[in-house]
Amino acid sequence: MREKFKKLNELLLEMQKIESISSLLHWDQETYMPENGGEIRSKEISYLSSLKHQKQVSNEFQNELRKFVNIDNGKILSNEINDNDKRFLDRVWKDFHYENSLPQKFVEDLSELTSQSQMKWIKAKERNDFSLFEPYLKKMVDMKKKEADHYGYSTNRYDALLEQFEPGITTEKLDDLFNGLRSRLIKLIEKIKNSSVKIKRVKGKFDEDSQWELGMKIIKDMGFDLKSGRQDKSAHPFTISFHPSDVRLTTRVHEDNFLSSLFASIHEAGHGIYEQGLLKENFGSPFGQAASFGIHESQSRLWENQIGRSKDFWKKYLPILKDHFPQFDSMDLDEYFKTINVVKPSLIRIEADEVTYSLHIMLRYEIEKMLINEGLAVKDLPKIWNEKMKEYFDIIPDSDANGILQDVHWSMGAFGYFPSYALGNFYAAQFFQKASEEIADFDKKIQKGELLPLKKWLNENVHKYGRKYLPDELIQKVVGSSMSVEPFMEYLESKYGEIYKL
Amino acid sequence: MREKFKKLNELLLEMQKIESISSLLHWDQETYMPENGGEIRSKEISYLSSLKHQKQVSNEFQNELRKFVNIDNGKILSNEINDNDKRFLDRVWKDFHYENSLPQKFVEDLSELTSQSQMKWIKAKERNDFSLFEPYLKKMVDMKKKEADHYGYSTNRYDALLEQFEPGITTEKLDDLFNGLRSRLIKLIEKIKNSSVKIKRVKGKFDEDSQWELGMKIIKDMGFDLKSGRQDKSAHPFTISFHPSDVRLTTRVHEDNFLSSLFASIHEAGHGIYEQGLLKENFGSPFGQAASFGIHESQSRLWENQIGRSKDFWKKYLPILKDHFPQFDSMDLDEYFKTINVVKPSLIRIEADEVTYSLHIMLRYEIEKMLINEGLAVKDLPKIWNEKMKEYFDIIPDSDANGILQDVHWSMGAFGYFPSYALGNFYAAQFFQKASEEIADFDKKIQKGELLPLKKWLNENVHKYGRKYLPDELIQKVVGSSMSVEPFMEYLESKYGEIYKL
Repeated sequence: MREKFKKLNELLLEMQKIESISSLLHWDQETYMPENGGEIRSKEISYLSSLKHQKQVSNEFQNELRKFVNIDNGKILSNEINDNDKRFLDRVWKDFHYENSLPQKFVEDLSELTSQSQMKWIKAKERNDFSLFEPYLKKMVDMKKKEADHYGYSTNRYDALLEQFEPGITTEKLDDLFNGLRSRLIKLIEKIKNSSVKIKRVKGKFDEDSQWELGMKIIKDMGFDLKSGRQDKSAHPFTISFHPSDVRLTTRVHEDNFLSSLFASIHEAGHGIYEQGLLKENFGSPFGQAASFGIHESQSRLWENQIGRSKDFWKKYLPILKDHFPQFDSMDLDEYFKTINVVKPSLIRIEADEVTYSLHIMLRYEIEKMLINEGLAVKDLPKIWNEKMKEYFDIIPDSDANGILQDVHWSMGAFGYFPSYALGNFYAAQFFQKASEEIADFDKKIQKGELLPLKKWLNENVHKYGRKYLPDELIQKVVGSSMSVEPFMEYLESKYGEIYKL
Repeated sequence: MREKFKKLNELLLEMQKIESISSLLHWDQETYMPENGGEIRSKEISYLSSLKHQKQVSNEFQNELRKFVNIDNGKILSNEINDNDKRFLDRVWKDFHYENSLPQKFVEDLSELTSQSQMKWIKAKERNDFSLFEPYLKKMVDMKKKEADHYGYSTNRYDALLEQFEPGITTEKLDDLFNGLRSRLIKLIEKIKNSSVKIKRVKGKFDEDSQWELGMKIIKDMGFDLKSGRQDKSAHPFTISFHPSDVRLTTRVHEDNFLSSLFASIHEAGHGIYEQGLLKENFGSPFGQAASFGIHESQSRLWENQIGRSKDFWKKYLPILKDHFPQFDSMDLDEYFKTINVVKPSLIRIEADEVTYSLHIMLRYEIEKMLINEGLAVKDLPKIWNEKMKEYFDIIPDSDANGILQDVHWSMGAFGYFPSYALGNFYAAQFFQKASEEIADFDKKIQKGELLPLKKWLNENVHKYGRKYLPDELIQKVVGSSMSVEPFMEYLESKYGEIYKL
């Protein structure tokens, strides 16, 4: 980084260290922390966030930033600045602006509400009683509206929330993308429903050590570097990065449900390979951070679905799988390929297949817009949820626990997050299409279990830039056109057309 | 804690949180951190120490402390203050004074030297080449002399270093204690050497999972609370506490050397039970910290030796041990008791038996005094070391790696630390003698594997006070007399008199 940004970089590096430390506290909390460790741990985590916030809005930081940027509106001051520097300063200012736009009191209140609200959500879900959660969610919606107002937006309040997860995306663009998708998806699902193809399911007990071993082998083959990361077990799989040389994955291993554990490992390793692919020398700079939640999800989805649920991939790995689990001995590649790609409308987002998944996201997106922009009352949420489930999936949830209460996000105040899951699917298909064109003998390589060329292509084309490009800029740079649902729909229609003989 | 100390306590709590966070970083570094994680990790650890230092010497802290203490000399200002408050303020001032006595530049230089010096020590030990380490050790000795001068002392420079590990202990007192011990120990060792008793040794392979399982059972029986702590594996066993509800032990498990692993577990659990026994409500206060390194060591030693190497303990556990390891099937309790208590002068401190152990410490103590007070040249260390080994043990080390280079402490600048190991032995014998008098049917309880009464006695009599009492005050409070080598020597003479038929 350039000499003139030396001081600024030092201050950014300090904040990044605090974040990195805080990530270790989170990781340990979900993996090894003993039961009683939580009370003080959560105080330590909030101490670190408040320390980070203080550094971010400190006079020292503001004075330094002011040398290059009008800190009120983000306008870059100097003319002697190149495109790289402009992008750098823009990202630095945006992070500052976000933290600085929120009054200290508001940040503290929100942090307290988040902590209470999560506990209430857990209870409400356990007891299947939305009313326990309702008053907290109502406060949360009110605060998120205020947050959007503090942060600012041009035409649409929900845009201010989207911006935190997917810079540059707007409600207008999402409406366009989703409108193009909805009817095609519903049509595809309808056809699949009417298909006469019957798919065998695999059941039984799967030895936990063998599951672990196979998962480790596959993530190593993908190029996840175990000298710069590790995999552990946790209740819910996640990836957390301290820096590119220390990236932690977790998975769950259940005797009864082998496939869910394996695909979780592949999914998380996709996230992990992205984090390991950020440039070490950019640690502390925005260029050393992932481009967006959607781009992140594209990496995990691409490995999980385009690779992990492809016939090519299992050409190599099915025999290895059979070595570990004789349950699969009687299955040929075609049958196995089908069994990992069953499409069936269902209640729960995280268990949804590739085809129905995006509908779960659209449902949440529509509800979020109604809450943030259109004054939908929180008390009416269970009713709206169930109506939309009926409309999209022709299913009415058996309970609020399996309906409106299923996801943690709203209890954490993460409004605007869900769309990035769908965007991840779209981007994944776009990247995958391009990668398979540019990598010589791509299909054959995957069939032989040669996964590293794909990993390197992603390193070179996606990972190394970090946040330098906005998501849509990055897509354009990589694939030559803007974000689009077309490659995703083509991928689904072709793959499921084959499976279900449509 | 009292209202008038509210602000002071908040500032102390903040520093304690930083320490606690830093401890997690250390723990992870030694247990799960991947190979490449170390570079940024060490920067994060030094960031946290410098943050802690800043807080400790900040104007905010000084202004608050000044309300109660003359911060130049530690004199308590107010007369309306009770004994408890005085002790509290004294400890708070001492911690402040230590950090504040060292110029910022000195702290940074020392931290850098420590990091280099440890790396050089590792290399020097690997290559058995003292000359690689010598220039760094020379600088370290010079800096520790300066540190002592900055900190201050009344008559003896080495006292200033001792004070950091064992408050209240002085060179004069240690000389007294060690002089009383030396000839008696040497006499005992001589008698053992001449004894005709032959002791069977156990060799073979010990299944690692069974070792782990048995170790876990025993530390649970001791009362180490696994809801407020855990045990993991690391290259060198250690205990680190984040707070009383999250205390982490580590042990090593080697197929070839089962006893070393088991006694390491018991030893570390002794430390861990102390940390869990500090009062939660004192987290942040000096009363929530251990009394000293020596008192800490007394807890690990008491469990490891007075309990773990006693015949009473194995009356219960030998049958359980045999369930795990058939290698012991042919041994009766007497034979087993002997095999875990072999006395043999040896080169390496950490492998020494109970009888010879303290001589290893005295040797180091004498050398440290010569280095700090008497101008002994670092280049002469290997010669002096070997002379003293000959004098104490009648052994000349086969290499510097097994001699002067064997311990990490000096490379870390931990001069004044070693004596606390010997003090731990003395205190352990004093506490144990008292506990066995005060706990009804003590021997019978241990024979039945009822270890919790001892744990509770230690909680009540030692742990709960934290740093409220100086080590010698605590000893007096618990056993009714000052620190002494007498109970330790009585214990050794009686136990080994029986084993070796002296």
